Amino acid sequence: MAEVCDDLLLAYPPVGASKLRRLMSLPNTVRLTVALDSVESAEQLEREAAEAGRSVGVLVEIDVGLHRVGVQSLEGMLKLVRRVADHSFLEYRGIAFYPGHIRGGATVQDDVAQLGADLQVAIRALDKADLHPAVVSGGSTPTVWQSHLLEGLTEIRPGTYVYNDRTTVQAGACDWDDCALTVLATVVSIAVPGQAVIDAGSKALGREPPLDGDGFGVLIDQPEVTVVRLSEEHGILNLGTSRWRPRVGETVRILPNHGCIVVHAHEKIYGVRDGRVETSWPVTARGRRRLQVGTRL
Amino acid sequence: MAEVCDDLLLAYPPVGASKLRRLMSLPNTVRLTVALDSVESAEQLEREAAEAGRSVGVLVEIDVGLHRVGVQSLEGMLKLVRRVADHSFLEYRGIAFYPGHIRGGATVQDDVAQLGADLQVAIRALDKADLHPAVVSGGSTPTVWQSHLLEGLTEIRPGTYVYNDRTTVQAGACDWDDCALTVLATVVSIAVPGQAVIDAGSKALGREPPLDGDGFGVLIDQPEVTVVRLSEEHGILNLGTSRWRPRVGETVRILPNHGCIVVHAHEKIYGVRDGRVETSWPVTARGRRRLQVGTRL
Repeated sequence: MAEVCDDLLLAYPPVGASKLRRLMSLPNTVRLTVALDSVESAEQLEREAAEAGRSVGVLVEIDVGLHRVGVQSLEGMLKLVRRVADHSFLEYRGIAFYPGHIRGGATVQDDVAQLGADLQVAIRALDKADLHPAVVSGGSTPTVWQSHLLEGLTEIRPGTYVYNDRTTVQAGACDWDDCALTVLATVVSIAVPGQAVIDAGSKALGREPPLDGDGFGVLIDQPEVTVVRLSEEHGILNLGTSRWRPRVGETVRILPNHGCIVVHAHEKIYGVRDGRVETSWPVTARGRRRLQVGTRL
Repeated sequence: MAEVCDDLLLAYPPVGASKLRRLMSLPNTVRLTVALDSVESAEQLEREAAEAGRSVGVLVEIDVGLHRVGVQSLEGMLKLVRRVADHSFLEYRGIAFYPGHIRGGATVQDDVAQLGADLQVAIRALDKADLHPAVVSGGSTPTVWQSHLLEGLTEIRPGTYVYNDRTTVQAGACDWDDCALTVLATVVSIAVPGQAVIDAGSKALGREPPLDGDGFGVLIDQPEVTVVRLSEEHGILNLGTSRWRPRVGETVRILPNHGCIVVHAHEKIYGVRDGRVETSWPVTARGRRRLQVGTRL
């Protein structure tokens, strides 16, 4: 039963004892790999891995332009890789990156070419230091169809592409017909002229801005109509440029700007084919953070 | 057992058979009242109430300036009230409004005075037509401490005031010390100079804009630091104007811009007193909408 049968990449630094212990409590048949960018998180991980008596793979995360996380220089990368390789229970496996700064548009070819060149520099620096990265893990939805242009890449981690959304379309990475996820809403008020109100607000759609144009989502069957304003439980459809006039009780399907946020806001997803519900999937890994109410200390 | 022991006001039009049937399935000991603004929703409600053989109270919602829902004129109000009063299973109880356009600031006194005057005009028009509103239901968190200035008001429905948030402070309706709800987050990366990254992003904080200043939340213990940028699972703290430099692993408490969105994003709320967790509450009524994945029809 000790045979490794699953690979788990945690492309997010697990920091803090409770998270690390949960990670270590996974069955030994799971081969763990963690992406991280700091000595502190490497040392925390080493301690917990030693305690659990298991080896954990590490990818050192590098910043390729999003400026969110990731080591900032070749020297920083080499230094952290050496620190990781020195630890007994950590196994250096390679590097990770997330090119979230590439959102499509006119510069996408140049941006991908620059990314490819930067990756080559990093890989060569590692090779030269005898620290060859067996894994080069990257990718995003807007760049998913350009992955073959990134020499040395061994793994991609796109997310949104499973369903696609309005942003993926606007980034040029898919067509409208490739979008699978919609929010089904009901018109609840048409009292105010020029608009209709649906029962999906920011708690259902999020308040993610579009790449182009306005609104927090678009009606997939009336693409000239957007959700132009949001309250928590109300979405305001702008009918200004449309001849469509819905009745109270009519249902509409909204293509959200950002599907990931929308999935996280719902308990269940219904799988529909030819207008019929064929299946439903619970969204299990959501809302698992710590929210506090208390006296100000 | 037929004694009425609970009052339920649904300040949102229940539209569509499935919602109406769930509403009607509540025990008969619950006295139901529904706010609505259209003939269509009144007729749907009447049909389902007749089917269920129970009487449902109705408040006619009027628009007092938010331009979201609500009848638009005195004539519209009187007409809908008469339609409601004509139905056998609907019982006209009064009017409802939501003054969400009043967000605080310099004009709040004038705005509340105008609202009070508008309400008087509506109440007098109803009285003159022999349709006295037994209930005048309104209120919001930013106006909660001005409720006594609204003559004829019988009921208030503020929400955010339970916990308060950064917006309530910025609206002048509470002080920093009145804010009870914070998101506990951990610093996971300090690789990029001038910022720190926490494990709370838009899925935890929402992307609600502040009334003043920048950011999607503020550190309650370092009020010069805001969450200036968000990804789904990453919050970027701007350290530019602060001398505070966190370590990886340090925890921070974030006062969110809009607490309601944050509650909806979490499964559980922990009640903390003097640094100790005393209780926890599940957030049960969340994520209950219909999300669809399917072929485009």
